[in-house]
Amino acid sequence: MSSPIQSGLPANRIEALSDGIFAVAMTILVLEIHVPELPHDVAPATLVAHVTELWPKAASYAIGFIVLGTIWVGHHIHFHYVRRVDRTLLWINLILLLSVSALPFCVALLGAFPGQRLPALLYGAIVEIAFGTLLALWIYATSNHRLVAHDLDARVIAALRRRVLVGIVGYGAGLSLALVAPQYSLLIYGAMPILYLIPGRIDTHVNQTD
Amino acid sequence: MSSPIQSGLPANRIEALSDGIFAVAMTILVLEIHVPELPHDVAPATLVAHVTELWPKAASYAIGFIVLGTIWVGHHIHFHYVRRVDRTLLWINLILLLSVSALPFCVALLGAFPGQRLPALLYGAIVEIAFGTLLALWIYATSNHRLVAHDLDARVIAALRRRVLVGIVGYGAGLSLALVAPQYSLLIYGAMPILYLIPGRIDTHVNQTD
Amino acid sequence: MSSPIQSGLPANRIEALSDGIFAVAMTILVLEIHVPELPHDVAPATLVAHVTELWPKAASYAIGFIVLGTIWVGHHIHFHYVRRVDRTLLWINLILLLSVSALPFCVALLGAFPGQRLPALLYGAIVEIAFGTLLALWIYATSNHRLVAHDLDARVIAALRRRVLVGIVGYGAGLSLALVAPQYSLLIYGAMPILYLIPGRIDTHVNQTD
Amino acid sequence: MSSPIQSGLPANRIEALSDGIFAVAMTILVLEIHVPELPHDVAPATLVAHVTELWPKAASYAIGFIVLGTIWVGHHIHFHYVRRVDRTLLWINLILLLSVSALPFCVALLGAFPGQRLPALLYGAIVEIAFGTLLALWIYATSNHRLVAHDLDARVIAALRRRVLVGIVGYGAGLSLALVAPQYSLLIYGAMPILYLIPGRIDTHVNQTD
Repeated sequence: MSSPIQSGLPANRIEALSDGIFAVAMTILVLEIHVPELPHDVAPATLVAHVTELWPKAASYAIGFIVLGTIWVGHHIHFHYVRRVDRTLLWINLILLLSVSALPFCVALLGAFPGQRLPALLYGAIVEIAFGTLLALWIYATSNHRLVAHDLDARVIAALRRRVLVGIVGYGAGLSLALVAPQYSLLIYGAMPILYLIPGRIDTHVNQTD
Repeated sequence: MSSPIQSGLPANRIEALSDGIFAVAMTILVLEIHVPELPHDVAPATLVAHVTELWPKAASYAIGFIVLGTIWVGHHIHFHYVRRVDRTLLWINLILLLSVSALPFCVALLGAFPGQRLPALLYGAIVEIAFGTLLALWIYATSNHRLVAHDLDARVIAALRRRVLVGIVGYGAGLSLALVAPQYSLLIYGAMPILYLIPGRIDTHVNQTD
Repeated sequence: MSSPIQSGLPANRIEALSDGIFAVAMTILVLEIHVPELPHDVAPATLVAHVTELWPKAASYAIGFIVLGTIWVGHHIHFHYVRRVDRTLLWINLILLLSVSALPFCVALLGAFPGQRLPALLYGAIVEIAFGTLLALWIYATSNHRLVAHDLDARVIAALRRRVLVGIVGYGAGLSLALVAPQYSLLIYGAMPILYLIPGRIDTHVNQTD
Repeated sequence: MSSPIQSGLPANRIEALSDGIFAVAMTILVLEIHVPELPHDVAPATLVAHVTELWPKAASYAIGFIVLGTIWVGHHIHFHYVRRVDRTLLWINLILLLSVSALPFCVALLGAFPGQRLPALLYGAIVEIAFGTLLALWIYATSNHRLVAHDLDARVIAALRRRVLVGIVGYGAGLSLALVAPQYSLLIYGAMPILYLIPGRIDTHVNQTD
């Protein structure tokens, strides 16, 4: 916490607030899946039918959870390199967290009206804002090594920027598709996180040099 | 954690509880924006109309999120300088957190009845209590350097006190306006956080000396 | 984390989980205060009347928040002295957290049916379980200095035990009163946290020797 | 944080996110127990009758809390030995957290329709997924000592693997029983956590060598 390269506020509490908001947003997604209001001795077949009808909500919940996980992983890796925090970074981060906290509503809307244009647009727009602020955060922190170690490898900076750009392009495509064919945009939204499963060159760096 | 200037309970867990309560309060704000209860194959125009009607709730949610973010930034900076915690500080902090946890209700009330006097008064009063306890916390901790480093610069103490006072005066003005013209008080409530975007002299100190 | 007196699992994550559960329980208390369902252009007097009717819920929310704060302060101070954690302590702590997580329901019941015997009994019983497990946790950790530093002063151990016992006796009195005069038991429930505002001899120790 | 055996991302934030999700999931379980909607001056006997009817929900809440506590204890002990984190571990952990966040819904379903097959199957399946990913996480981290200290005792690795396997077998039995006799599967679900109360050989290791 006191190496010579550090100054400014330490990053630990901004990480704690962020982890808390991610954790709550990821967990309250499930509150939008309501237990069917039926008598407790309902016929089993009726219960199965009502629970089965919840699948669009369950699918959008799982997709929302995974996309939040993806954004969190990016946040986690960026802050791994951030050595100090200034007021501007605090505010960029708050805008990111605002989009994170808005996602449960968008996911619930998507689960309630699957295939409709508005929810597909809103979901894509919010995720796009999240990735956009993640990019802004990284560019702000690394430009002239403002808030990262002065000897942080330019290839690391570029690799992490590239990974966020992939998200912006991908969700941008989903968002455009939502305008003309909302039901297909969901396929892109669902597929995007899988991209982030693939280890990138950045992992090699992280694993070797830390 | 064990420098000679420290005694009393360490501040890390009070920060953890505070970050948790801020995180939950900021995230459950969105639970007050309910997905419209419409058939899932509703006409798109109807859905757009219903979602559009949610804008006062969305606006009050965003304002509430940002004001909580502002209070958290103040809390973050104050505790950056607090070296130890005593029972009085624990309790001042609990009152602050009580006002933080009450904000989601006030925000929901404001979103449901925009332009009414009562919600505007209640919201302003709770934010005023939050800023008031933030000031009390800082004065208690710094008077005679009670809970901060004995060599903490008096200019830092004064600068941070001034920043909180700005909030108290600003929200006090909003609160007074709420008595006579509730709809205009919302403008002040919405504009106040922008003030906190502007870097102050305190940032220079934080960036240079930590 | 690796001083000779330490063995067993470190306490930091048990504290993190506990802080998280306290933070969520303290914040979701407010979810039980529902915004009145009225048209957004309702007459101001009607809105005032409906919000005023919420005062028993607001009072039980504030009392519940403060009592959870009191329990958290106790937990905070106990774990300040706990050097390591074993499986038994993990489970005692989980029972404590179970009672903490049950409190929002009890508080909501108390706010909905003030003056009734059942809610007063249930609230008192759950708080009594919380204080009881807090005592069990402390006795287990300190007996033969099992999980605390081997040189921890016996007076500290006794002073902290005494503070928890005060809570057990006080809430026990409230619980007994709830059987015969529920509305008066609320006075005791509301007054108890004030006792914990008074600094005890333990604070002197904490402030001097840590 | 910088011992020679460490490389990769540090584990502290993955623990923070996990603790947050466990904490929220464990606490929002109680939101499914609704305060009866009755007039505030309802006859005491009626209130008692309505609250008593909540017992299946209260029981499933307590069981859900304890099972989440059990999974958290396992997570806690595994990560106690994990020295670094890679992308694969992040994603295994996210699947684990997805099952954790889904549990409140399953618990609510179980509490609303006790004795029905579907809720018993769903609950067992989700807990089985949680234990399965806990096993996958441990096997991935320890195979060839990939993410643990290179000198971590093979007996510790085997003992922790065994403890998770016990859960998988036990909940697997409950799941099978749910197919033919749902009401009896609940007994197994309720009894399983008790097994984890019993100290195992692993505790001796943890207590002696850390």
